[in-house]
Amino acid sequence: MNIIEIIEKKKNRQELSANEIEYFIKKYTANEIADYQISALLMAIRINGMTDNETFYLTKSMIESGDVIDLSSIDGFKVDKHSTGGVGDKVTLVVTPIIAALGVPVAKFSGKGLGITGGTIDKLESVNGFRTELTSEEFINNVNQYKIAVAGQTANLVPADKKLYALRDVTGTVDSIPLIAASIMSKKIASGADGIVLDVKCGSGAFMKTFEEAKLLADTMSSIGEKLGRKVVAHISDMDNPLGLMVGNKMEVVEAMELLSGNMNNTHEDLYEECVIISSLMYEIATGKSKEESLSTVKEVIENGKALEKFKELITIQGGDVSDIHLKETKYSEEIKAVNSGTIERVNALLIGEVSVALGAGRLTKESTLDYDAGVALVGKNGMQVKQGDVIAKLYSNKEITEDIIKKAEQAFVIKL
Amino acid sequence: MNIIEIIEKKKNRQELSANEIEYFIKKYTANEIADYQISALLMAIRINGMTDNETFYLTKSMIESGDVIDLSSIDGFKVDKHSTGGVGDKVTLVVTPIIAALGVPVAKFSGKGLGITGGTIDKLESVNGFRTELTSEEFINNVNQYKIAVAGQTANLVPADKKLYALRDVTGTVDSIPLIAASIMSKKIASGADGIVLDVKCGSGAFMKTFEEAKLLADTMSSIGEKLGRKVVAHISDMDNPLGLMVGNKMEVVEAMELLSGNMNNTHEDLYEECVIISSLMYEIATGKSKEESLSTVKEVIENGKALEKFKELITIQGGDVSDIHLKETKYSEEIKAVNSGTIERVNALLIGEVSVALGAGRLTKESTLDYDAGVALVGKNGMQVKQGDVIAKLYSNKEITEDIIKKAEQAFVIKL
Repeated sequence: MNIIEIIEKKKNRQELSANEIEYFIKKYTANEIADYQISALLMAIRINGMTDNETFYLTKSMIESGDVIDLSSIDGFKVDKHSTGGVGDKVTLVVTPIIAALGVPVAKFSGKGLGITGGTIDKLESVNGFRTELTSEEFINNVNQYKIAVAGQTANLVPADKKLYALRDVTGTVDSIPLIAASIMSKKIASGADGIVLDVKCGSGAFMKTFEEAKLLADTMSSIGEKLGRKVVAHISDMDNPLGLMVGNKMEVVEAMELLSGNMNNTHEDLYEECVIISSLMYEIATGKSKEESLSTVKEVIENGKALEKFKELITIQGGDVSDIHLKETKYSEEIKAVNSGTIERVNALLIGEVSVALGAGRLTKESTLDYDAGVALVGKNGMQVKQGDVIAKLYSNKEITEDIIKKAEQAFVIKL
Repeated sequence: MNIIEIIEKKKNRQELSANEIEYFIKKYTANEIADYQISALLMAIRINGMTDNETFYLTKSMIESGDVIDLSSIDGFKVDKHSTGGVGDKVTLVVTPIIAALGVPVAKFSGKGLGITGGTIDKLESVNGFRTELTSEEFINNVNQYKIAVAGQTANLVPADKKLYALRDVTGTVDSIPLIAASIMSKKIASGADGIVLDVKCGSGAFMKTFEEAKLLADTMSSIGEKLGRKVVAHISDMDNPLGLMVGNKMEVVEAMELLSGNMNNTHEDLYEECVIISSLMYEIATGKSKEESLSTVKEVIENGKALEKFKELITIQGGDVSDIHLKETKYSEEIKAVNSGTIERVNALLIGEVSVALGAGRLTKESTLDYDAGVALVGKNGMQVKQGDVIAKLYSNKEITEDIIKKAEQAFVIKL
């Protein structure tokens, strides 16, 4: 067996065997196969696809490339969620305390953000004192005692994915359903969950442009999960617009807390609905309760304040200061006004994401430092009627806000007469 | 413009522009684009193909990546030939003196061999004293005075091809018709010829397995040639069997000289026919004479000994010793015998090529040194009746001939009852 034979097979649309897939993942992770050979293989996979079996063995080999977290000492059915990512997506901050408040253990590992996609870890670290680096004992004890812990991924979680993703990013091979599915599922399964709810975004601002593609990705991930003995359900949602109102690290933590406290003035219905759906699916697969019961149970735990209580508990037990969770003054701020009157047809999530990165809320490279208080507060949302000159967004930053950034923020709002 | 956008376009089956193709060839030749990006692009080209226009611009950009040889100070229509390569292919040694003897200038640049494919330069250098490194003046003077010169390719001829070929070789992207066509045509055109005869091999021992593929390659190369103002004709021939009887450097020079001297005892009809076809096509495109007249003219110049005279002249003017052209004793030799009686259905060119490399006649890596006198002399050819124990080949080498080599040589002969 050698890598050229494996490339030739995939190029000629033949199915790779479990051994062949294990071989190239193992050797590539150990730096024994050159990048230029793997990038050719990735392109052949991108164009010719993979069978369900190939995608399963790819995921399995990727899981085995590094540490696999053992959560067996945590009682109960551990449930996790994954989102394919989006601008203003603070769903994890809302749903994990809801589920924990219902007594279902949440052992959550999250990543840092890169580019326009924010990371849960960055958002939580914006709260004064909050620690995301927990020891294994601390993590497991917290889940057993409080039903919740959120920590950064260990460095050696699916190292094959780190290498493959970096290569895909610069070789035009990101948009491959089997490669995306294996990347997501290998990390979720290596993180030890028994059940996973997948939040798959589709739309022009997401990797999956159409509902059909999103459905195929969801089905592929569910099939991998089932083969590895995990309960997996997927929810497909629109990602043409940012979720909620806030885009920025601390701003999103504030929005999540406001939502859980029942104050809808600083958040938006779309975020509430998304969080209720995801958390009810998590509750459903963890308990086997019906869809209807799960939905009403989730709504109840928000309304009776128990989810908010759990949220504050999470912040406190991991060293965070709850009194720090409020919007901060920044050195600079700008109001964005509607350039014409009409109905906001769409808020371009991609442009809003780019604006938030430019303001300091996101990383351009892994080494960038974040301005936790920077971000975009949307006022206008899709469907809203506005008059020319109405404030539709506010920008916050601790560095000067250039004309280019303001222009881009204005362009994000598509207002039709 | 950046390389990722170019990869994405080709991946999505969009046509690359002349500028985009020029960009990646220029930057890659200058080591400003990484191998892993170009290998992904090459795989996308291999799977999705290229339009005629793309293949043309690729060839043009490759030509412009290095030196272009100016043969304008040579009088007359300069004609060249190219073979997609084969085992025992000594056609160049035979046809170039035929054409030169007919007064058509032959300014021939050739390469060294690698693997089972021999190189004209290696074969000529096996003759004592023969020099293939000529100065430009010497080369041009020889062609003007004697109508013939054969020299090694300059180091800076199509450097883009050298880099691309090395990468294709290890990334499963060799068997792409546009990439093969651009590689061959860029070198031929950069070498300065006005007209090119293409000898395209097909069969299990060649890159092109079927006649249809060979035809597509031939048409692609002809189309490139026409767009660059060159006369191009292609001849498609079978390559399931080695050409002629001798496989090995000095042995092939001897066979070529015997053929030109009219002695058919040490050569085979298939080589004679191939050489007559190729040289008549070369004569036809150089002079505009009819097919029939070209064929009879070529046969005549062999029969009247003028082609042999020109062959000896070529050897002499480039410093070679004609009296050195005869089969040499080697330290070791082995007779290969028919393992059963019957008809030789096929002589496997690939296996014979591997045997000759193992005997020392070919290079495994660029650094290998050659045993000029080593090689395989076929006795049996396809179609021949043999009895068990009949000698069907002789192996020559200056290193010990192992049992493995003998076994492989036996296996090369497919003998059916």
